Amino acid sequence: MQDAKFDVLTIGNAIVDIIAKADDDFLVREDIIKGAMNLIDAPRAEHLYAAMGPAIEASGGSAGNTAAGLASFGAKAAYFGKVANDHLGGVFTHDIRAIGVNFDTNPLEDQPPTARSMIFVTPDGQRSMNTYLGACVELGPNDIDADIVAASKVTYFEGYLWDPPRAKEAIRLAAQIAHDNDRLVSMTLSDSFCVDRYRDEFLELMRSGTVDIVFANEAELLSLYQTSDFDSALSAIRDDVATAAITRGEDGSIALNRDGTFAVGAHSIDRLEDTTGAGDLYASGFLFGFTQGRPLAECARIGGLAAAEVIQHIGPRPQTSLKGLLEQSGI
Amino acid sequence: MQDAKFDVLTIGNAIVDIIAKADDDFLVREDIIKGAMNLIDAPRAEHLYAAMGPAIEASGGSAGNTAAGLASFGAKAAYFGKVANDHLGGVFTHDIRAIGVNFDTNPLEDQPPTARSMIFVTPDGQRSMNTYLGACVELGPNDIDADIVAASKVTYFEGYLWDPPRAKEAIRLAAQIAHDNDRLVSMTLSDSFCVDRYRDEFLELMRSGTVDIVFANEAELLSLYQTSDFDSALSAIRDDVATAAITRGEDGSIALNRDGTFAVGAHSIDRLEDTTGAGDLYASGFLFGFTQGRPLAECARIGGLAAAEVIQHIGPRPQTSLKGLLEQSGI
Repeated sequence: MQDAKFDVLTIGNAIVDIIAKADDDFLVREDIIKGAMNLIDAPRAEHLYAAMGPAIEASGGSAGNTAAGLASFGAKAAYFGKVANDHLGGVFTHDIRAIGVNFDTNPLEDQPPTARSMIFVTPDGQRSMNTYLGACVELGPNDIDADIVAASKVTYFEGYLWDPPRAKEAIRLAAQIAHDNDRLVSMTLSDSFCVDRYRDEFLELMRSGTVDIVFANEAELLSLYQTSDFDSALSAIRDDVATAAITRGEDGSIALNRDGTFAVGAHSIDRLEDTTGAGDLYASGFLFGFTQGRPLAECARIGGLAAAEVIQHIGPRPQTSLKGLLEQSGI
Repeated sequence: MQDAKFDVLTIGNAIVDIIAKADDDFLVREDIIKGAMNLIDAPRAEHLYAAMGPAIEASGGSAGNTAAGLASFGAKAAYFGKVANDHLGGVFTHDIRAIGVNFDTNPLEDQPPTARSMIFVTPDGQRSMNTYLGACVELGPNDIDADIVAASKVTYFEGYLWDPPRAKEAIRLAAQIAHDNDRLVSMTLSDSFCVDRYRDEFLELMRSGTVDIVFANEAELLSLYQTSDFDSALSAIRDDVATAAITRGEDGSIALNRDGTFAVGAHSIDRLEDTTGAGDLYASGFLFGFTQGRPLAECARIGGLAAAEVIQHIGPRPQTSLKGLLEQSGI
């Protein structure tokens, strides 16, 4: 195995977030499932934007946020995702490159436009996403740069990629290339409703060894095993995948492999502002530690540190150097 | 005089902000005057964007921020400003209408594109702006809706409007209509370098009675009178205009008219994040109080309350209801 040029390659839906505050009544009135990623079409996107309060725009996309977090820690990160050749595509491309991520996926020259997600943040800090996938539906196997996959210690992807039609083919190809080069493959389960849509396929990815490291929050884990019993779900995932990290919000996280289970507390915060990106940044910190050869409990703590930064401001990517925060933390 | 349909009409350069953190070395390397509004052309805008770190986009423009602040207090606000019929123009229009401001200026159908300002926020929280005026150069007298001016208690505009070629004609027309209808006219001096460019014209606006209420920060006031002595500058402005409000950052502000001078302390904050919009929001709070008939010192305190909200997060417009904050404050 050659030296890795990249610590982590992430693959996901390339999305610009449009973020506004809203109250819970608004979610009810607009039929938005709270805390979930709601898929929407173009007319619905137009309707919701008209109903939305004043917003800010920030590059997002789950795996894009994870790549940005990795770069902020000082890791070498790469990203594959599909934007269109339009204003928002330019914003996405600028932001991910500007933080130091290698990003060269060919943009779509024509319609549909770059994906956007309208995110409503309620007073409790919870985010409810409404995603128009746009150009993301064109991501396919041709977008997999085999050299980059082969040169990355870990290839990480979103469960969300099962929503567009051909991205799963791209992921299966990338996983094959990674394993052929003795690299690891990681995924996030993304969203409990997404798990519900693709439960059998996600379990097959884990049980077949296509995926080596799984990230999930508590709701996603329970959805995966269709149980309300957390401990039995934890036992089940231990049998299904080599390494898993389960986030539990203010209760911290649990990292496990076949050797042990490590529960760590949440990093303390001053004020919860917006949970958008919490899981994505947790994954960035965990994978940063993992690719540096840190013990599993430390990986979980570094994940918690990154999540704590991103939930204290509006927007899904770090606004403070995670490298600096990690140095200060003493982890 | 008929009942006013609007408390305040604001007129300004309609701009979307592109905001990133940067260190002081970056400002030196890129020849950016710290703390100032630097005017740039299209090639320079392209160069700076390529050099800029990951950013967020948020509707801005000084008078646009003031209108948004007024609406957030629950005032009836209107805005005139020129965007183009492009993506950023759509963002600007959405955001200002979504917070409740009346905004109907005809957008430019063709080039140049909607204005943008690249704002670099240094670790001390200071912002340095780099503004490409784009469509703003087309704002002119035809954009003045006389009915709205006549129906507004106060018409407020930016000194920045002396930069584009024909906006000053629009302002002189609006001021005439306002005074013909027994309304008041207000301006902000905007920026000490802007004062330096248009000192004689700004003094003439005040001394001729075209402007009734002036907002300035300390640097702008000193630049206006070309002095380093704050007290003599304060005496000078008392003679030149009916009402003035001078902001002094962490030292609070001073409001004065011919009857008296009222110094108030700054509103306390937890953490200075980004000073963008501080003066704009101060003006919104002051004018909200003023149009409610509050005493001058209270107007200054309400201004300070609004400024304190906006400097504690990235982005130039309030993220929390100013109406709610004012109710809690007991002012």
